[in-house]
Amino acid sequence: MVFERVKQPPSQARDSQETQMHPFDPLSTSEIDAAVAIVREAHDGPLKFNTVTLSEPRKAQMMAWLEDPGNSPRPHRAAEVVAITPDGKLYDGIVDLTTNAIVEWTLVKGVQPLVTMEDLQFVEHMARKDEDIIKQCEAIGIPREDMHRVYCDPWTIGYDERFGNSDRLQQALMYYRPEIDDCQYAYPLDFCPIFNPNTMKFIHIDVPAIRRHVSKAPPPNYHPKAIEKEGGYRKDLKPIHITQPDGVSFKVEGRHIEWQNWKFHVGFNHREGIVLHNITFNDKGECRPVFYRLSLAEMVVPYGNPEHPHQRKHAFDIGEYGAGYLTNSLNLGCDCKGTIHYMDAAFVNAAGASTLIKNAICIHEEDAGILFKHTDFRDNSTIITRSQKLVVSHIFTAANYEYCVYWIFHQDGTIQLEIKLTGILNTYAMNPDEDTKGWGTEVYPGVNAHNHQHLFCLRIDPNIDGPNNTVFQVDAVRGPGEIGSPQNKYGNAFYAKRTKYCTPPESVADYDGSSSRTWEISNINKLNKYSKMPVSYKLVSREVPSLLPKEGSLVWKRAGFARHAIHVTKYSDDQIYPAGRHVPQTSGEPSHGLPAWISGTANQSIDNTDIVVWHTFGIAHFPSPEDFPIMPVEPVSLLLRPRNFFDRNPALDVKPNYSLTPSQVKEGSNPEVLQDESSKAV
Amino acid sequence: MVFERVKQPPSQARDSQETQMHPFDPLSTSEIDAAVAIVREAHDGPLKFNTVTLSEPRKAQMMAWLEDPGNSPRPHRAAEVVAITPDGKLYDGIVDLTTNAIVEWTLVKGVQPLVTMEDLQFVEHMARKDEDIIKQCEAIGIPREDMHRVYCDPWTIGYDERFGNSDRLQQALMYYRPEIDDCQYAYPLDFCPIFNPNTMKFIHIDVPAIRRHVSKAPPPNYHPKAIEKEGGYRKDLKPIHITQPDGVSFKVEGRHIEWQNWKFHVGFNHREGIVLHNITFNDKGECRPVFYRLSLAEMVVPYGNPEHPHQRKHAFDIGEYGAGYLTNSLNLGCDCKGTIHYMDAAFVNAAGASTLIKNAICIHEEDAGILFKHTDFRDNSTIITRSQKLVVSHIFTAANYEYCVYWIFHQDGTIQLEIKLTGILNTYAMNPDEDTKGWGTEVYPGVNAHNHQHLFCLRIDPNIDGPNNTVFQVDAVRGPGEIGSPQNKYGNAFYAKRTKYCTPPESVADYDGSSSRTWEISNINKLNKYSKMPVSYKLVSREVPSLLPKEGSLVWKRAGFARHAIHVTKYSDDQIYPAGRHVPQTSGEPSHGLPAWISGTANQSIDNTDIVVWHTFGIAHFPSPEDFPIMPVEPVSLLLRPRNFFDRNPALDVKPNYSLTPSQVKEGSNPEVLQDESSKAV
Repeated sequence: MVFERVKQPPSQARDSQETQMHPFDPLSTSEIDAAVAIVREAHDGPLKFNTVTLSEPRKAQMMAWLEDPGNSPRPHRAAEVVAITPDGKLYDGIVDLTTNAIVEWTLVKGVQPLVTMEDLQFVEHMARKDEDIIKQCEAIGIPREDMHRVYCDPWTIGYDERFGNSDRLQQALMYYRPEIDDCQYAYPLDFCPIFNPNTMKFIHIDVPAIRRHVSKAPPPNYHPKAIEKEGGYRKDLKPIHITQPDGVSFKVEGRHIEWQNWKFHVGFNHREGIVLHNITFNDKGECRPVFYRLSLAEMVVPYGNPEHPHQRKHAFDIGEYGAGYLTNSLNLGCDCKGTIHYMDAAFVNAAGASTLIKNAICIHEEDAGILFKHTDFRDNSTIITRSQKLVVSHIFTAANYEYCVYWIFHQDGTIQLEIKLTGILNTYAMNPDEDTKGWGTEVYPGVNAHNHQHLFCLRIDPNIDGPNNTVFQVDAVRGPGEIGSPQNKYGNAFYAKRTKYCTPPESVADYDGSSSRTWEISNINKLNKYSKMPVSYKLVSREVPSLLPKEGSLVWKRAGFARHAIHVTKYSDDQIYPAGRHVPQTSGEPSHGLPAWISGTANQSIDNTDIVVWHTFGIAHFPSPEDFPIMPVEPVSLLLRPRNFFDRNPALDVKPNYSLTPSQVKEGSNPEVLQDESSKAV
Repeated sequence: MVFERVKQPPSQARDSQETQMHPFDPLSTSEIDAAVAIVREAHDGPLKFNTVTLSEPRKAQMMAWLEDPGNSPRPHRAAEVVAITPDGKLYDGIVDLTTNAIVEWTLVKGVQPLVTMEDLQFVEHMARKDEDIIKQCEAIGIPREDMHRVYCDPWTIGYDERFGNSDRLQQALMYYRPEIDDCQYAYPLDFCPIFNPNTMKFIHIDVPAIRRHVSKAPPPNYHPKAIEKEGGYRKDLKPIHITQPDGVSFKVEGRHIEWQNWKFHVGFNHREGIVLHNITFNDKGECRPVFYRLSLAEMVVPYGNPEHPHQRKHAFDIGEYGAGYLTNSLNLGCDCKGTIHYMDAAFVNAAGASTLIKNAICIHEEDAGILFKHTDFRDNSTIITRSQKLVVSHIFTAANYEYCVYWIFHQDGTIQLEIKLTGILNTYAMNPDEDTKGWGTEVYPGVNAHNHQHLFCLRIDPNIDGPNNTVFQVDAVRGPGEIGSPQNKYGNAFYAKRTKYCTPPESVADYDGSSSRTWEISNINKLNKYSKMPVSYKLVSREVPSLLPKEGSLVWKRAGFARHAIHVTKYSDDQIYPAGRHVPQTSGEPSHGLPAWISGTANQSIDNTDIVVWHTFGIAHFPSPEDFPIMPVEPVSLLLRPRNFFDRNPALDVKPNYSLTPSQVKEGSNPEVLQDESSKAV
């Protein structure tokens, strides 16, 4: 990379509404417009804006201000700007919106910033007119006059050693639709053109040795007309109404949410989507910090078919496209049900104008079943307390797939991240009676859905009663001593073996299902008053597959974060993206992000200091026809649970729905029941 | 064991209402009464009734009748009876309720049947009057006049080599309550008396070498008066109403439930609690069998403290006490919320009278979020379809703990079993500054909550398009070929490695988290028309800890089923309980149940025949103060998912909540939205 500083305009304090926005707030549309104007003023010539997003305050400064806003300087509002010149030069900059100054403006070489929807929008149009592509279509049975029926999902090329990364290339995954409303993923085409958006030209077409004609199977559609034709929708499903007659239990102040002792700030950026900041829990009046920042920082979806050029299918949907940029505008009663508070998301477009996705974030409560219950068998004295949960969610569409991301707060102090995968399988063409060789499944005639994994990287910036934290690996293991020995006579001894991670290299660890491995993020400076154990949050995650591409493979090199379930690093303001800041077209040589950060840190302490925990989890997906033509949600979920953090169950003061004590049983009293007008027995 | 046949009364057909009950229905109260009367008539002398429950029809006969009820004999109604004579003789019998005949009546020696609540009710009363126990109480600071404040949770002794199994013994876990409404688990006593209910005498007291005085800590209560004293309940929680104005979507006919293409029979017995029979799915008009029988057939809760006599703490709550006998009567709007259909549960008492637990089973629907969604990035054409789920649940109390068992049916063909653990930790006394040595956690002053596991055994009797099924172990593994080789040039190859279990010993397998191991229960005689793979249901279970007591240990011997995650056996009508038919006081020498059934079957085929799959799953629990004094629910969940079973997503005909097709976008049409009057934006 080569850095080149450009002149900065004179700084001047802006006295706008935005200067009073919270430092964690995403940029408003007017801030985006202001940042663009400042850049335009300073920079000669046209620019295509790739990113204008909040440049988050440096943590040290922000922590000081959060601690003592009266006496600490308020962090400036700032925009991170990525812009591309018409001749392909890439600038990475920071604009201080409090002083109206460009504080950083760097020409970066040898990298490609993420790909926006605007970057991708021309390919399909160009493909339909390209003579070479038309010929390829003809070769597999699509006549020239049907080119309007040809579609493509443009992906960044990922990495292809034949083309390197100096040009910003796209691979065009080709499909066909017999009719406009047909599901194109049922008609994959067998060739893959490579597009250069700078020259607006296709530079190459990958054509397989064995050709596959476009499928003639009838369309397997899921839209209403198709279902009506089959006999219509089932009529035996009655509505379930969910209402909150007294209103919601959460409070919104700006982007701060307060709910059931939780308080946190809801941010959102083009890349990670939802970012939760400064999560605290009010423990009997004491506001205790828990996490400084939580986000889904990266993901990779490697496909397992070794045939060329499918190795290029390993999308980093967050780093290459942006879970924020891909986010859906949500629909009331459809995406979310109940009483909903929405938040919008502001972005920049290539022309430098601010844009707004309405209803990008959904915040709502749900009944969450029993919180705790106990019945005394002696007298049937009973307590039943039900729970609610608060869900902060967004949904993003990565071409064929949908990812529904739910950040869930529980009354017992648990934070849950649940991701539901839906949408449509990525598919490839196959001939009748072609053998998938186990690399995929024929989910419909002529449709080969390749094996793949969805590996997500959760970035946890903990703040467990303060920033100095330590991570312990916790394994459930057998105690020492042979059966019959005095120390383990009956062989039943077992305990939680705690292994402290002292340095980043020590922390690079895999999951172990057999020992029910968890990880505790602890503050060793503060012990629980009863257990004398450090106050902790425990990561409980059970869907943790190995990275299936081999060690040394293209995916292994590019997605270094996915090689292991856990990495712990010392906190650095500049380490947010575990596959590196600019992901498209990285070769993986060297690996960016986590492997680079951890390399050479064998002497660095991560014990009792400001750390970041990176956790890779997800699923391996071997498709089946049930997943087609549109996939029922597949859930994956993990928990961050308080352990030795509270002195007792922190939800004891949630009013029970049913309570009858032994003395009331003795007196013949009726149980105290919290009236639920809505429930009834039938 | 010694068998002794007794005379059977002359058989005579009864023309009662019960003869028209469904063969899977649990016994009605009048059937229980009838069975008792028949036994009493035949048997000289008094009997204590331990069990009178449905003797389920033999499978071959039942399958024939289900197939062709017009031409196959209707299975008789029959009762399984376990009764004990005053001198401790145990009889195991079967009464045919269609013919009013005792068809089996066997004296069984050397075993103890499960322990009922009636068996346990005297111990506490006796303990308070026992001089030796009074002395032990005095030794730890409880004066004689406070004996009414002493409580005990009687458990079956499990197994203690000093006392064997000829007497039906109980161990009395001792506690203290300063006041009647105080949580006794905060005041565990350090000694453990052994009680013989036949002689009504305490035969021994286990007293530890180091004594622990009863705690003087203030009571950590969770009842309303205690919370009021602290400042009362939180006031910022508003109700969520869940209503079904048009009624429910499920139909109940007898104990058959029909919902969203699912049809099944809800049984219930004293031991397993809910039993689901003959689960079928209506696949576009074809009623396809899926499971013949599903139940939670056993569990064990080993504790990890090696100090004597804690090795005895490893309750088989299902086999030793019965999840049905321990079941709660559920409260509307408290245990379950929404529109509920309840079913009762009938049992026998020791005196031979039928008893009824009202509202033992709850059946209701819940909103289940998004079923599937896809947005086309080109034009924002979108489909969003929401889902509902049907939940069949019961909750049972095993002394201190509560187990909430939810059998959940999903519209996409998935069956989920979710268990939520709540209630109160089993606790033991500790002195101030005593070291728990890692075998437990001090969760409150003087309260040592020992490490433990909850290991459940799910019994799956599959019927995947017929009874002849095969189990494959499925591992996500890397493909062959070095990086750079023609077959795996980029190293990305991976696939689902399928290993067929041919014999029971081959099927004895552990979980492997690193390969995301699942198991497919397949019908290899029927291939999916697209994938050409056998129609299957896949067991997806991620909470599968190793059995932590050592190989050869007492628990390992007694709970043979828990040694491994999977066992597959050839179907046998007599193999229902994986730790054996009579569990209390088994020594584990030899191991009953699964190890015995699998021993010597190396030449038996389990490929393409009628099989049973046994799956052990659960959690390891290292307590923390958050779990006390009453534990927020800890969930554990697994899925049975259709794979290659359907030709497509079976829920495409669920009406979408939002639909906008590409052609509608082009025409400028509005989306079709399923009105949800209840949702609103705030």
